[in-house]
Amino acid sequence: MATEHIFIFDTTLRDGEQVPGCKLATPQKIEIALQLEALGVDIIEAGFPISSPGDFNSVVEISKVIKNARICALSRAVDADIKRAAEALVYAKHPRIHTGIGTSQSHIQHKLRSTQDKILERAIHAVKYAKKFVEDIEFYAEDAGRTDNEYLARVCEAVIKAGATVLNIPDTTGYCLPEEYGAKIAFLRDNVKGIENVVLSTHCHNDLGLATANSIAGIQHGARQIECTINGVGERAGNTSLEEVVMIMRQHPYLNLDSKVNSKLLNQTSRLVSESMGMPVQPNKAIVGANAFAHSSGIHQDGVIKRRDTYEIIDPKEVGVDTSKIVLTARSGRAALAYRFKNIGHNLSKVELDIAYAQFVQVADVKKEVNDEDLEEILKREQITA
Amino acid sequence: MATEHIFIFDTTLRDGEQVPGCKLATPQKIEIALQLEALGVDIIEAGFPISSPGDFNSVVEISKVIKNARICALSRAVDADIKRAAEALVYAKHPRIHTGIGTSQSHIQHKLRSTQDKILERAIHAVKYAKKFVEDIEFYAEDAGRTDNEYLARVCEAVIKAGATVLNIPDTTGYCLPEEYGAKIAFLRDNVKGIENVVLSTHCHNDLGLATANSIAGIQHGARQIECTINGVGERAGNTSLEEVVMIMRQHPYLNLDSKVNSKLLNQTSRLVSESMGMPVQPNKAIVGANAFAHSSGIHQDGVIKRRDTYEIIDPKEVGVDTSKIVLTARSGRAALAYRFKNIGHNLSKVELDIAYAQFVQVADVKKEVNDEDLEEILKREQITA
Repeated sequence: MATEHIFIFDTTLRDGEQVPGCKLATPQKIEIALQLEALGVDIIEAGFPISSPGDFNSVVEISKVIKNARICALSRAVDADIKRAAEALVYAKHPRIHTGIGTSQSHIQHKLRSTQDKILERAIHAVKYAKKFVEDIEFYAEDAGRTDNEYLARVCEAVIKAGATVLNIPDTTGYCLPEEYGAKIAFLRDNVKGIENVVLSTHCHNDLGLATANSIAGIQHGARQIECTINGVGERAGNTSLEEVVMIMRQHPYLNLDSKVNSKLLNQTSRLVSESMGMPVQPNKAIVGANAFAHSSGIHQDGVIKRRDTYEIIDPKEVGVDTSKIVLTARSGRAALAYRFKNIGHNLSKVELDIAYAQFVQVADVKKEVNDEDLEEILKREQITA
Repeated sequence: MATEHIFIFDTTLRDGEQVPGCKLATPQKIEIALQLEALGVDIIEAGFPISSPGDFNSVVEISKVIKNARICALSRAVDADIKRAAEALVYAKHPRIHTGIGTSQSHIQHKLRSTQDKILERAIHAVKYAKKFVEDIEFYAEDAGRTDNEYLARVCEAVIKAGATVLNIPDTTGYCLPEEYGAKIAFLRDNVKGIENVVLSTHCHNDLGLATANSIAGIQHGARQIECTINGVGERAGNTSLEEVVMIMRQHPYLNLDSKVNSKLLNQTSRLVSESMGMPVQPNKAIVGANAFAHSSGIHQDGVIKRRDTYEIIDPKEVGVDTSKIVLTARSGRAALAYRFKNIGHNLSKVELDIAYAQFVQVADVKKEVNDEDLEEILKREQITA
């Protein structure tokens, strides 16, 4: 079975940037956009032009410098929004307008104070209007995760007829379980006329820690685009992490799904986004956290020293990390200690190692990490000259 | 259908604490253990007694103060380890010894340099030996995620016969997809004699961002205990986040699975662990991140102001967060601005709001967050006296 391409739609600069404290200036956005193009993402959502003059300008400037990636601009299903998005995209080589509206009962009743039929009309109108400006129109059915599948299918069929090329099915509140989200995508694939001519897209939020699993369930059931952000930044608990979905596909080749992301640039891209936004990545973040490839417990260190894939399934080099770190702490064992001694030039005998280890455990009980100087100190104190 | 109880096995103090830089002193561990008991976890894994004198002592001291939760101590399938674990648990009201060994080909060949039959014998011996000290024995089949299901079932059946009360099926490398992990648990439930008399347990790692989804798949297929840590701390990309699995069960009552965790204490427990370990929680962390309930984009703010559950599915109070924050940034809309003006005592008319909004957008384009003083400044500048 041939591997199918999954489009990576990065929304770091739009859904990621609308986070408290994460605002970026235009030059920073351009730098990140260029990095995303180098990384190999297919679509860059560059902003929400009507939201502010600064955001409009960023979309314009990013459109000028990006050559291969498609540039997408967000709008609500409102003519003024769509027109402004189109204006911001005039320099884009491959422009896409992203427009849409809430489709769940909660959104239709409480937020939009409208009816299902009126919302359907607004959706059709928005796509037709956007189509006057550009060919590639992505439609989002906001809160699709909580939208009744029958109505969602009606909306999808209608906007495909109106000219939509991509259908975005967002789990806006991060509520779905993977099997539910996968079933929703499968339902649309099986029940929407014309669905074979458009790309189904996942857009998942991480409020319950399930954004990555939901996105993967989506592509297993027929979606062919994943919307995601670097480091999973985004409102509230954030969006799907680009680095996670990319590496899951790479690590499970039997899925026959892959992106064209150059994973070796994941680490530097993560750092650029984190530093530009002032948004820390926790040490225990998958793939890009500072500890993602660090081992400290004795059992794990012993295994990793014997053979890397005992505990690691990803070669750190594959995601741009130089080497897996062996950190010495109170939980480290003899094998790790011997390895570190060897690294700093001391080949200890078994007896010497026993003596040094007893000392090491005492030092480690009071210090968080034992460094090379501490090790030299132990050898000196115990008069080991290996 | 009656709701079934899911045991929450917290390993913050064992798998969480063996992280580079996260070492805790005994008094800190006692404080966290007391908090975990207040939170309502069923089992506290307090340490790995043979690994260091400090860790041994922590298990002893925690055993003395904890009244209701079960105290668990880790050991390898080695007599000296098990004996030391038993010694550390003498003061525990409800002691459990956790012992086990690697069962995957990778672990058996490269780490243990042994054979499947010899490992099976060691597993049986370890459980029988542990059983001499305490009644409650949990067995872990390390790297079960990559262990052949037939052999895994043989090991499980043998250790149940030897006296194991809980079977821990760890996805040690964080490799499994949810459907694979769920299928593994289902296979054991369907193929292991005596499985109905023991508790199947999930123990998932987050290397690919799937620990939470895998744990949920596990309990959907018959597991009745989840091993997890506060904030998902743990080696490499960490363990399953306690707060996420607890809230997923609470938010999806139709699963008929629940824990006895008092969710209102999740936030303070998260902060205690983060501060004690010096392990930051990223702002976009699900449930306990600083931004988990913050809204800044105009579309979202408008929705939340009209009705909270438009964008939030969890009431912030349920997890111990005072109120959802409306943060004003360049992405904020008129509704959010009006709301904030109202909060500081100004009821603006529509015309006044239009004027103030135009000013606000300019201020927000240069400032990351617009605060109350900035708002007062805008009113003054525009001579609005609402």
